[in-house]
Amino acid sequence: MILDKIASPNDLKGLTVDEMEMLADEIRQGILNRVDKIGGHLGPDLGIAEATIALHYVFNSPKDKIVFDVSHQIYPHKMLTNRKQGFFDNERLLEITGYSCPNESEHDLFTIGHTSTSISLATGLAKARDLKKENYNVIALIGDGSLSGGEALEGLNNASVLNSNFIIILNDNEMSIAQNQGGIYKNLAELRKTEGKRENNFFKTMGFDYLYVEKGNDINSLIEAFKKVKDTLKPTVVHIHTLKGKGYAPAESNKERYHWQLPNFIENDKNPSQSCICESYEKITTDFILDKKSKNEPVAAITAATPGAHGFSVEFRDKLKENYTDVAIAEEHAIAYASGLAKGGAKPVLALLSSFVQRTYDQISQDLALNNSPATVLIFWGAISAADCTHLGVFDIPLISNIPNVVYLAPTNKEEYIAMLNYAYNQNEHSVFIRVPFGPLKSAGYEDKTDYSILNKYEMVSRGQKVAILGLGNFFELAKDVQDELKNKLNIEATLINPKFITGLDDELLQNLKKDHDVIVTLEDGILDGGFGQKIASYYGSSDMKVLNFGAKKEFTDRDSLDELYQRYHLTKELIVEDIKEIL
Amino acid sequence: MILDKIASPNDLKGLTVDEMEMLADEIRQGILNRVDKIGGHLGPDLGIAEATIALHYVFNSPKDKIVFDVSHQIYPHKMLTNRKQGFFDNERLLEITGYSCPNESEHDLFTIGHTSTSISLATGLAKARDLKKENYNVIALIGDGSLSGGEALEGLNNASVLNSNFIIILNDNEMSIAQNQGGIYKNLAELRKTEGKRENNFFKTMGFDYLYVEKGNDINSLIEAFKKVKDTLKPTVVHIHTLKGKGYAPAESNKERYHWQLPNFIENDKNPSQSCICESYEKITTDFILDKKSKNEPVAAITAATPGAHGFSVEFRDKLKENYTDVAIAEEHAIAYASGLAKGGAKPVLALLSSFVQRTYDQISQDLALNNSPATVLIFWGAISAADCTHLGVFDIPLISNIPNVVYLAPTNKEEYIAMLNYAYNQNEHSVFIRVPFGPLKSAGYEDKTDYSILNKYEMVSRGQKVAILGLGNFFELAKDVQDELKNKLNIEATLINPKFITGLDDELLQNLKKDHDVIVTLEDGILDGGFGQKIASYYGSSDMKVLNFGAKKEFTDRDSLDELYQRYHLTKELIVEDIKEIL
Repeated sequence: MILDKIASPNDLKGLTVDEMEMLADEIRQGILNRVDKIGGHLGPDLGIAEATIALHYVFNSPKDKIVFDVSHQIYPHKMLTNRKQGFFDNERLLEITGYSCPNESEHDLFTIGHTSTSISLATGLAKARDLKKENYNVIALIGDGSLSGGEALEGLNNASVLNSNFIIILNDNEMSIAQNQGGIYKNLAELRKTEGKRENNFFKTMGFDYLYVEKGNDINSLIEAFKKVKDTLKPTVVHIHTLKGKGYAPAESNKERYHWQLPNFIENDKNPSQSCICESYEKITTDFILDKKSKNEPVAAITAATPGAHGFSVEFRDKLKENYTDVAIAEEHAIAYASGLAKGGAKPVLALLSSFVQRTYDQISQDLALNNSPATVLIFWGAISAADCTHLGVFDIPLISNIPNVVYLAPTNKEEYIAMLNYAYNQNEHSVFIRVPFGPLKSAGYEDKTDYSILNKYEMVSRGQKVAILGLGNFFELAKDVQDELKNKLNIEATLINPKFITGLDDELLQNLKKDHDVIVTLEDGILDGGFGQKIASYYGSSDMKVLNFGAKKEFTDRDSLDELYQRYHLTKELIVEDIKEIL
Repeated sequence: MILDKIASPNDLKGLTVDEMEMLADEIRQGILNRVDKIGGHLGPDLGIAEATIALHYVFNSPKDKIVFDVSHQIYPHKMLTNRKQGFFDNERLLEITGYSCPNESEHDLFTIGHTSTSISLATGLAKARDLKKENYNVIALIGDGSLSGGEALEGLNNASVLNSNFIIILNDNEMSIAQNQGGIYKNLAELRKTEGKRENNFFKTMGFDYLYVEKGNDINSLIEAFKKVKDTLKPTVVHIHTLKGKGYAPAESNKERYHWQLPNFIENDKNPSQSCICESYEKITTDFILDKKSKNEPVAAITAATPGAHGFSVEFRDKLKENYTDVAIAEEHAIAYASGLAKGGAKPVLALLSSFVQRTYDQISQDLALNNSPATVLIFWGAISAADCTHLGVFDIPLISNIPNVVYLAPTNKEEYIAMLNYAYNQNEHSVFIRVPFGPLKSAGYEDKTDYSILNKYEMVSRGQKVAILGLGNFFELAKDVQDELKNKLNIEATLINPKFITGLDDELLQNLKKDHDVIVTLEDGILDGGFGQKIASYYGSSDMKVLNFGAKKEFTDRDSLDELYQRYHLTKELIVEDIKEIL
């Protein structure tokens, strides 16, 4: 393999174009192998192999600084910077992350996993260079899909007036995760159509020099373009047109589906099975929305470019038609848009991932909650997990629940979720967030008839004494286990409570517990700092009640196994009961 | 007065253009009177009088929906919608807010005080209209300064593909709060210069129809333009060129200074006194930065369009030159930019207001903290206050302090602030935030020699027993008063602690208190939910220690007086000691 000879980008310099083309194919083999074994980003990486080679051929990393946006397209870069083992050595795939990671290599400048960051970060690098009177190229590599995010757009505005070297490589593969949405993308399409010649040009209006490369998978064209802009003294955009999924036919033809893949997709592609129509929280959600649509209600399903993560399949979107909006990667806009829809009398249902809801705090507070706009916001994937440090789902509780006016609900099973969805959708008083249960669907087996308009009413599931366990959302099952364990180990008939409301305290119930309880245990599937349990601890601070809060520590974990995390945080029934025993 | 005849926008319809011009002057008198009596936004309101009249003359509010961005320019609208008393009746000025406020009028659609929101909110309204098959105009009125914010730019991208009626009125007065910054503004300048004819047009690239009005203070021109776009079926931008500060000469000539004014500015303008060069936290900050500049260090002072709020005066900026960046209204970019600067070896010092730091949570978490970029971020105006509900400074502690890796410091006086500034600036390990004390400068009278690189070490100011008071930041003075009061009223020699670190617990000190204390009191100048005190309560949850948390309730207060709030939250020494007495 040619790749075997590449220990650093410097080793590219002696290759011929033919060799570089072979190298691109080898890189694609590495991408396919890694993703097939452990899952990961596929389409964007396959499409950027040539451009990454050309970048490293023309520029001199790490002296020249290349910032990779969101890192969905960083695999080729990793292979060219001495991390081949993460793609070809099946025993060592997990040694490297799927994201930009400075701990792995001096060629990775930031830990990055959220989108739309590269231009702003690189603008800071360029300014630092200028202040220190140093001399190197600063390059932000950004996908077209990431361009719609506020941080990227704010960055463009400032980068364009840098008055010094600054290069944006726009990797335009005509796709976000799903299809691109919005006016910017119409302009990109026109620029592609005219091979960059259209006079009315988004980047030029911002003040950038602009260069178009139609053959974004052609090494020669790329090298030529990059050489042209190297050492430029003006902020410049190089718009390269690449093929998402290149080299793997299914990924070329179904770009959304192959943006990311689970392990064993190659085998599964050869023997496609019927797609699962199992019951799931996603399916409950889409069924709920489709039902409203069928009744001609003004329901508005909204995603910010991650439809697949919420079960918003192509079929679902096709059925919804005008009742569906993908606002593109634009979480701030998504929340404000939902607020406007609600105030206009429509029924917005916005789905967001826990890790991305933090991209829109101000809008939740000001546009939504302060206005009590009755939107329904569903938070998916909120849980302690083995995720990469950039995609943790443990921060949404402190983030959302400390904003006044918001009602944040934590269902523990299918029936509660349905009841809460109905409540959120039908009411007109509050901005209601629901933390959709994470993991396999659970069913109580009977309808939940709770009236959720009576706010902050916890459910007393079984009344015991001495110890009360508040199991929030995902951790209600764990609370039940703790209750059993207390019975078995300590012969304590503990009280079991399903709080349901993350955003408020059930004063009556909590007062009542004082009579015959000594210890309150809170369990939440997120960080403790600023979360649910600490409010309970504060509530009982002036009393004799002892309170034990269980949840995650305030830290960025990084692909730590769930078992390890549960051990670390004492999130097993055995460890919890031991802790309880200690203070009884 | 003509204004006396205007009880609703409908009453405008019968006026002649001459009458409307007189009305504009009357409106300006109202603006000047209100701001001179109680302070408020001056320049932007003076400049938009004619456009507001023309808007209400052509469109039919409230059937047609007009969303006012940030509300810096909503005074004329308020006068035309039956709220004249808030401008002319000196006894009733405080009856109306300075911001868009649905509680006051059906013509105000949202409670708005943060910027860059109108396009996104209005897009939601327009979509709701379309889903409900209703028929009216939706208009977003936005200033040029607000355009740089991510939410506005994200909104443009989605609004432009609405495929139905949507009108953006861009009020271009050539200014943000201070001067506009960035590539977008170069394009606006070119559009003004060519009277809208320049082919390369930011709004057209986004897909909008576009109309330019050079005479943005001329009723006739405005009416003509608005009539042209009324009932349009395509998203359209009307770019009007107005004069900020129109009609008040000092405001026309010094646009930044008169963006906002304090009471009595008219008298003060006639008899200008020497501007204050008193010692202040702002001056300490700017002196610190200028000192670094004078030593040729790569210091980078950054603001997101609010330089005045941090003492970043015109003189300061002139001295700093390339070491100063106003990134425009773009808080997300500001944080990422600071992270890039720090990684590039420069020394960023970013100043933000507490109310606006919430516009950039994800960037603090991902771009900054996850990367441990050693930037210094100063949070001003973090405190319980009588502010409008849109500008509260009580949420920054939960927001910032629950993000891993961040070091958030709370100085209590000048010397601590200087020591913390030095620590933050000189270290290379952490993203350090400092909650700049709010209110008059306090001095300890001696240098603070604390080594802040030893994280989470609280200062034991005086060691007593039974009761320990942790007075965080601004509330350290209150803690001292409580200590005195405990001595006087209950003869308790209480322990007084200055925690200094918001983001971590001093385990050793807190453990040590268990020996001879029964009650811990925490005081913080912000909301309790998710804040500092609740962490202390959780810490002691498993022990016999009682904990009383004092701070603000989780609520949007709205111009409530500080006295009232302190009473409500028990934030006086008397009320606190009563609460302590109750549980002793």
